[in-house]
Amino acid sequence: MEKWSGKPVSFADSTIIGGFWKTEQDLCRKVTVNAVYDRFEETGRFEALKMQWKKGMPNQPHIFWESDVTKWIEGAAYFLKKERDPELEAKIDELVGRMERTQDTNGYLNAYFTVVEPKARFTRRTDHELYCAGHLIEGAIAYKEATGKDNMLRVAMKYADLIDRVFRVEHSAAFDTPGHEEIELALMKLYHYTGEERYFKLAEYFINTRGTSDRDETYSFTDQEHMQSHLPVREQVTAEGHSVRALYLYSGMADLALETKEEKLTEICRTLFENITEKRMYITGGVGSTCRGESFTFDYDFPEYTAYNETCASIALALFCRRLWLIEADGRYADTAERALYNTVLSGISLSGDSFFYENPLAVDPRRNAFNDSRPEGLKEHLPILERVKVFGCSCCPPNLVRTIGSIGDYLYSTAGNTIFAQCYMDADTTLHLNGKTITLQERTEYPCDGKISWTLKSEGNFTFAVRIPGWCDKAELLVNGEKVPAAAEKGFVYLERDWKDGDRIELELEMKVKLWEGNPEIVDTCGRVAVTRGPLVYCAEGVDNDDTPLRDVRIDWDAAFELEKAEVAGREMPVLKVQASRREASKALYSDRKGKKVSFQLKLLPYYAWANRGVTEMDVWFLEK
Amino acid sequence: MEKWSGKPVSFADSTIIGGFWKTEQDLCRKVTVNAVYDRFEETGRFEALKMQWKKGMPNQPHIFWESDVTKWIEGAAYFLKKERDPELEAKIDELVGRMERTQDTNGYLNAYFTVVEPKARFTRRTDHELYCAGHLIEGAIAYKEATGKDNMLRVAMKYADLIDRVFRVEHSAAFDTPGHEEIELALMKLYHYTGEERYFKLAEYFINTRGTSDRDETYSFTDQEHMQSHLPVREQVTAEGHSVRALYLYSGMADLALETKEEKLTEICRTLFENITEKRMYITGGVGSTCRGESFTFDYDFPEYTAYNETCASIALALFCRRLWLIEADGRYADTAERALYNTVLSGISLSGDSFFYENPLAVDPRRNAFNDSRPEGLKEHLPILERVKVFGCSCCPPNLVRTIGSIGDYLYSTAGNTIFAQCYMDADTTLHLNGKTITLQERTEYPCDGKISWTLKSEGNFTFAVRIPGWCDKAELLVNGEKVPAAAEKGFVYLERDWKDGDRIELELEMKVKLWEGNPEIVDTCGRVAVTRGPLVYCAEGVDNDDTPLRDVRIDWDAAFELEKAEVAGREMPVLKVQASRREASKALYSDRKGKKVSFQLKLLPYYAWANRGVTEMDVWFLEK
Repeated sequence: MEKWSGKPVSFADSTIIGGFWKTEQDLCRKVTVNAVYDRFEETGRFEALKMQWKKGMPNQPHIFWESDVTKWIEGAAYFLKKERDPELEAKIDELVGRMERTQDTNGYLNAYFTVVEPKARFTRRTDHELYCAGHLIEGAIAYKEATGKDNMLRVAMKYADLIDRVFRVEHSAAFDTPGHEEIELALMKLYHYTGEERYFKLAEYFINTRGTSDRDETYSFTDQEHMQSHLPVREQVTAEGHSVRALYLYSGMADLALETKEEKLTEICRTLFENITEKRMYITGGVGSTCRGESFTFDYDFPEYTAYNETCASIALALFCRRLWLIEADGRYADTAERALYNTVLSGISLSGDSFFYENPLAVDPRRNAFNDSRPEGLKEHLPILERVKVFGCSCCPPNLVRTIGSIGDYLYSTAGNTIFAQCYMDADTTLHLNGKTITLQERTEYPCDGKISWTLKSEGNFTFAVRIPGWCDKAELLVNGEKVPAAAEKGFVYLERDWKDGDRIELELEMKVKLWEGNPEIVDTCGRVAVTRGPLVYCAEGVDNDDTPLRDVRIDWDAAFELEKAEVAGREMPVLKVQASRREASKALYSDRKGKKVSFQLKLLPYYAWANRGVTEMDVWFLEK
Repeated sequence: MEKWSGKPVSFADSTIIGGFWKTEQDLCRKVTVNAVYDRFEETGRFEALKMQWKKGMPNQPHIFWESDVTKWIEGAAYFLKKERDPELEAKIDELVGRMERTQDTNGYLNAYFTVVEPKARFTRRTDHELYCAGHLIEGAIAYKEATGKDNMLRVAMKYADLIDRVFRVEHSAAFDTPGHEEIELALMKLYHYTGEERYFKLAEYFINTRGTSDRDETYSFTDQEHMQSHLPVREQVTAEGHSVRALYLYSGMADLALETKEEKLTEICRTLFENITEKRMYITGGVGSTCRGESFTFDYDFPEYTAYNETCASIALALFCRRLWLIEADGRYADTAERALYNTVLSGISLSGDSFFYENPLAVDPRRNAFNDSRPEGLKEHLPILERVKVFGCSCCPPNLVRTIGSIGDYLYSTAGNTIFAQCYMDADTTLHLNGKTITLQERTEYPCDGKISWTLKSEGNFTFAVRIPGWCDKAELLVNGEKVPAAAEKGFVYLERDWKDGDRIELELEMKVKLWEGNPEIVDTCGRVAVTRGPLVYCAEGVDNDDTPLRDVRIDWDAAFELEKAEVAGREMPVLKVQASRREASKALYSDRKGKKVSFQLKLLPYYAWANRGVTEMDVWFLEK
């Protein structure tokens, strides 16, 4: 394995054949893509692209609406890339046509700043213009890749060229760096896709200028930390501020570090990853503990009932991880990507595929929400909602889920030099390029529901196949063509180097037992409590499965034996757990000087991502330890 | 004992001789009375009474400033009643003189509605005019009682007469009942003091009209529940809304029920007391769980870090209890009054006597406050402060503490028929009136630091002496003239009826062991946790005494042996506790699949009321149970 030279393997090189992600992708293609489209149509997001809105009309365009549209296009395009669909393509063509027709002759494109406040273009860094531009670029590349049509890409490049001139060349905008990052990673993608160096230079400019400009203002109610401009990026050693912005920036920084091989920037990316995963990430891979600024807070701060954990933030964390694993071979990046994807990201979408959570708390108490809902506006607290909804005012998460699920194959493999890294496990066929060779692999697995993964090679050649042993796995068995080989991992990977033959078979069995976890003693919310996982899945309990027993009072023994079974939850089959647990008997006294009598009962748990699909009910992840 | 006919025994009939409350009263007289005066002087509250403020001048009078002034006068007067002091009296005379000079000829008195918004008098029920009037009445009675001077009383009566005319007779105000209760109980007091029935009628009118008028509006950001006008008072069966308002109202309702002997209203008072003490009261006697509206929330809702628990609300709870114990002989009322007084009320004032808490949380995490303090205004959460301050913008609690401590003897005894009820225990000499007899009692005790209480009679006669056995006490020993008598309590009291002789001696020894308590399983915040009490005192631990060990991780065994010792905390001697406890070793991992190794250490605890007197440090009341 060579350091510094990781290369992504695009989802386009793989086809999800079966297993967990086949179900997710089919649902997303059949339901989510259309549901998000319909909601955006209804709410005027598509209409806005016509730029015919006038004062007094409904659906005034919002500063970030373009990003919703182009993120949906990006997601839909990932599905089109796999299977053409004239109807879906026509919908996108119509939207792209609107952009072509309404794009300013100088390249500018944003409905709000065209029909509502045309004089305010590029005057307020906090107003998401460049964030929208970033998503336009990503959508355009995806659409070109899917269909070969380059009209959206031309729109995006024309806009990018305007931005390059205004920001990097002429400095004629009123600010220097965007308040909501995203364009940095998008420009790096555009640079790689087009080979045009100016896009690299512009990305580099935005990243390097951040935190150095006195023209970069904040919202009145926020600060520079909120938008990661409190320090030059190479001095940022803790994850601060708005969590989605932070992780989009860090992803762009990782792209830049990979490209330039700069030691310092690489080290900062690693430091930020460690600050997040060792101090500021929920066990579900959720980040951004607070609704106040949707932001990171301080080390070991993990309130459960008010955990914000925006779906987009965990998507962004996975994006950051996928870049870090190109920089160095370390299984912890895929561990964290999986933690985010299998728990918080998927919690963001209902099992029916058409409803969404923006926030993903670790526990909910319907009594608290009911009380809060009964309060007048001025006396409400901000609480996560208890049931997913079809669309949000700020509806960034739904199309972000579409593009993430549509391109989930991006998380399968990476390469570096002569090594193929098997990062995350999915049932998929892949044909990838390695040192000039074309390698075809058939991966078969029920992961994350089962720990068996096999690969059958459909090519031959001398190369190294690096198999990841996840951090949660205590015991792994590895066979090559039926013969056991040592499964001792080095930073999370077992390296198998040989002259591979067509038909060679690698079998991995990850021991996937149910495990209890405790939080660091510095976490005030988890002291005395344990969380339950199996493989990468975090489990939770819901009142609806447990006779509405007060879940916070449930005690689980460290040595408890869990029963695993497949069961249907809201029509979806999944691995659920049962365990003998205990809780106190109901009692009348508010405070009692006697230790409450415990009763034993069977606690039922389900994967966290599947919570809240059967009505309003209590939910909890952290149980008392016994 | 006769039901329905309880009579209060005024603090004026007692003199605190020594013990716990002597220390509190001396400090209050020497420090607090003057400190509050000085802060009110500095902030313009006294100057405002001159009613010479004009636009552009500093210290614009606030709608509730009169209540601060008159509550301070009331408190100072309680001390004057015990010991005349020309200097203090002169200060009050000056303030009363200002009121006399600036009171409107029609009786109206409120600086804000005289110099700032004179046209808005009696137009907004949410603007505290009648609340201020109530405190004026209470202050005036106290001052007349202390000095014999009736000029403040004349001011108060003149104002009360205006209010009677405007509200009850003419209905010429823009609303019918006040948004912030207080005047109801004050009018009942004025009725008893003057014998003028119109004050009774006005109190009754305000209480009976509440919740029935469509002219009674709310703040834009609140609702009728916030000010207890969501229902007629006889239909209010749960404690709702702003906790101080609620408890001032309930106190007035109890006054009315006692006076009229109305069964329904009595039952409602009992129901509200039970809702509070069985569902909505912290173990420290704190009430009003949330800062949002300073209000009651829902059953079993006891967040610890954000517990609001306003000092005034616990004072008001004690006031309600003191009225309830006149309605019926039940020790639970004094139990609750003590819970409030010895914990949350006294937590409201520093051991130095000059600094105050408005909010009294059950746990604090200085990391959370430090982070929050670093946030820009728009991203801050409301958190309790960590160190007491000298004065607040809304500085109701400091003078409320002065009047509570000054008149603490009000909590000593009550009578009913031929029975003296010993309600709360203090080291005091008392001469009270019982059925035409004058009875002198010498009570000696170090309570709440020690469980021994003795009474020596300095009178003779046939009567019943009812000794309260607190609810927390499992074993009590009672001696009369050295001979053991059965200490079996009936609803919290042991009744000793005999022909008492001068020199008779009653000795009570309450077993005062350290006890652990658990919360009801429905309380999400206390599951798996225990609180420590000894007698009426709730204990807490502070980081400063415990090497900054993470207190939330501390585990206490239900069978642990506590060591009691007297120790100095910030210069005050008090009973502190030590116990062998355990906690996990510090760890690097954010989440660990291994049960953390425990280390045993000596946990030091101090009475909750003494917390936060030695700088910013972590504090916790609920520990993990082992």
